[in-house]
Amino acid sequence: MKKINIGIVGMGTVGTGIARLMVQNRDVISARLGAQLVLKKGADLDIERDRGIDFAPGQLTTDPFAVTDDPDIAIVAEMVGGTGIAKEVIDRAIDNGKHVVTANKALLAEHGNALFEKAETKGVNLSFEASVGGCMPIIKTIRETLISNRIGAVAGILNGTCNYILTRITNEGITFAEALTDAQEKGYAEADPTLDVGGFDTAHKLALISALAYGMKINLDDIYIEGISGITPLDIEFARDCGYRIKLLAISKFDNGVVDARIHPTMVPFSNQLSTVSGTMNAVTLTGDGVGDMVLFGHGAGMMPTGTAALSDIADIARNILAGGGIRVPMRAYQAAHIREIPIRPIDEIKTHYYFRFTVFDRPGVLAKIAGILGNQDISIKSVHQTERKLDGGVPLFMLTHQAKEAHVKTALKEISALDVSTQKPVLIRIEESGH
Amino acid sequence: MKKINIGIVGMGTVGTGIARLMVQNRDVISARLGAQLVLKKGADLDIERDRGIDFAPGQLTTDPFAVTDDPDIAIVAEMVGGTGIAKEVIDRAIDNGKHVVTANKALLAEHGNALFEKAETKGVNLSFEASVGGCMPIIKTIRETLISNRIGAVAGILNGTCNYILTRITNEGITFAEALTDAQEKGYAEADPTLDVGGFDTAHKLALISALAYGMKINLDDIYIEGISGITPLDIEFARDCGYRIKLLAISKFDNGVVDARIHPTMVPFSNQLSTVSGTMNAVTLTGDGVGDMVLFGHGAGMMPTGTAALSDIADIARNILAGGGIRVPMRAYQAAHIREIPIRPIDEIKTHYYFRFTVFDRPGVLAKIAGILGNQDISIKSVHQTERKLDGGVPLFMLTHQAKEAHVKTALKEISALDVSTQKPVLIRIEESGH
Repeated sequence: MKKINIGIVGMGTVGTGIARLMVQNRDVISARLGAQLVLKKGADLDIERDRGIDFAPGQLTTDPFAVTDDPDIAIVAEMVGGTGIAKEVIDRAIDNGKHVVTANKALLAEHGNALFEKAETKGVNLSFEASVGGCMPIIKTIRETLISNRIGAVAGILNGTCNYILTRITNEGITFAEALTDAQEKGYAEADPTLDVGGFDTAHKLALISALAYGMKINLDDIYIEGISGITPLDIEFARDCGYRIKLLAISKFDNGVVDARIHPTMVPFSNQLSTVSGTMNAVTLTGDGVGDMVLFGHGAGMMPTGTAALSDIADIARNILAGGGIRVPMRAYQAAHIREIPIRPIDEIKTHYYFRFTVFDRPGVLAKIAGILGNQDISIKSVHQTERKLDGGVPLFMLTHQAKEAHVKTALKEISALDVSTQKPVLIRIEESGH
Repeated sequence: MKKINIGIVGMGTVGTGIARLMVQNRDVISARLGAQLVLKKGADLDIERDRGIDFAPGQLTTDPFAVTDDPDIAIVAEMVGGTGIAKEVIDRAIDNGKHVVTANKALLAEHGNALFEKAETKGVNLSFEASVGGCMPIIKTIRETLISNRIGAVAGILNGTCNYILTRITNEGITFAEALTDAQEKGYAEADPTLDVGGFDTAHKLALISALAYGMKINLDDIYIEGISGITPLDIEFARDCGYRIKLLAISKFDNGVVDARIHPTMVPFSNQLSTVSGTMNAVTLTGDGVGDMVLFGHGAGMMPTGTAALSDIADIARNILAGGGIRVPMRAYQAAHIREIPIRPIDEIKTHYYFRFTVFDRPGVLAKIAGILGNQDISIKSVHQTERKLDGGVPLFMLTHQAKEAHVKTALKEISALDVSTQKPVLIRIEESGH
């Protein structure tokens, strides 16, 4: 039976997951692939730690370049993460003519255009299923299943940390700070949680998915990013009463040569499958002109789910090698000559439905003043709800709007804030009415 | 740009869907594939009907073998359906060394073992993504994404007709007969609905999925099949009160060298994603030792979703052709030498949780008698509910059980039926407690 040698750089969570699956499921992998995947070398700063695997002497090394430069290794899995040494590892592996598999969305969102072009020039694959949505085959589905569809939209819950925090606030009515502490204690959130709760990790993933879906160059810079730290139990409770859950959504839509691409807390109706995704689970809705809406749901992170995704890339490359070929499916879904710069619509120009919460003095005329300003900005109110509950010296006034333009909404909220009627800054949450 | 010629036999719903996507999305397909897919010939008994496509003179033919025997055609899409002429078409295309794409689960469930072996011998692909779950990449995900996982279970809602009927009964409290008539009027159910509502179509699909998941020979004969015609609004209402929805599930599990494979109405807890699938939508949960539970959700039928799945197979084959290769991914997920006969557990030997509804005379001692018989058969009652509502001269007595053996359940229900306490036959619905 043919053997294909694999090297792993970064034997942390995901690197160890790949190695474990290669050992514990060696028999099924070979029975399916018709070849044997062999872990030739693994590199990590710490090679002493028990990883639950019996390594042969010399199989682990502290030198990443002992992996990238090993002439026997055909496929290098870069599992270091970040944009430092990881980039050197990938560059060197590609320079050496090796195929690369990575889970590194941060690096690809920032340097992907150049890295993919370089890999294309060298005729090697730079595969990244593990970088978006853990085990879910989001990239394979866009690149292969939807080859015949014009993809119109992608919407996803792509960060388990945020979804866990929002689920805790929803189910227990605790504050964001309390839910974050809990997530940190459980190991779902980092000590510095900014990358997750600020929406940046989600944006890295959306930049990659959007590129694949529409044949556009990767463009992280123009994605609008808003995190979840402003979400309160009060807003979640009101949303629920109106038939919505609040989720951190990655939204991207293709419309007449322009792309909407944004990350923000979003009110999702119960009828939308994404509203049912709780805890650390992830899900993504892919909308195509042939398939309508299709949803993938699964573990978005973790040793074995992400390891599974990396191994599916490794096996795909192994199959190419066995067939004598190089790149079979273009890395960015489209042939290089067809990849264009497609502009991302500035957030001020989007049109969507909105939820507002004002905290106002409980006196006559306030609603009339607010409604007047909204009307002047062409913002049509769908419903208004006021409760008796006191909040910070005022009472909450909730509103849902019909579709309005973001720039108009900003102007209106600024004018309303300038009135002497509120005790708190207005809260704005966008609503996503489409989708299954 | 290279051209790859396609032939379609059967220009009905799915065949037309393939042709339409090839025309309306020609540009994106080429930009992704790097080659042009050309519809060389389409065969159908009716070549006059308007299909919304401009065909060239001679592009349509009434002779299926003009497609299978055309030396310029590389890939034949068999979209006739059924087990008659469809088999001749596939056999002849394979004999002629052509790759075949089909949506024909009935044919593959019955003759797949021989057909796949024949295709392997000839070195051509017999691809069938379109035969299970419409647009959802169930087959690709099992064969490629999960290559490194031991797959432990598959559970799915794989028949849109049944799911539509159950959804209508659930939402409106109408009877099965009323919901079926509505489904027929809307075109979701055939005049003879047996294939769908009897569970047979679902069984064809489960036979294929199980073969791929566990590396087993296709075995339709030993799958237990129970349809949905016995489901009443009363059972659905009680299930809902206890936190369950009733769905027609295809369930397959691998356990120590034996496979559970069964189709029956199933109570699914609200916490399971499959409980949220309504109307004609389909979904499937794949459980692997690496990924845990992963769910795919989408349109399980229809012109464009199923056409999309067929085109993803066509594009995969086209990529193989462009790379100079034949079979890249083994059709049945495993290399032929590793495909085994794996026995399916007889239904009497399964263990699961049960729901019973007895309709009993409202008098003292009845519950004690029933409970006694259940206890003697080692069936442990989890909860009992009795309502005051009169039904057919009796009152309904609902029970949920802990895990019990089906053979014991059957014996107990037979003994209970023999008692002079019931006015109706007992109702039994199996419960699926596992899964996301």
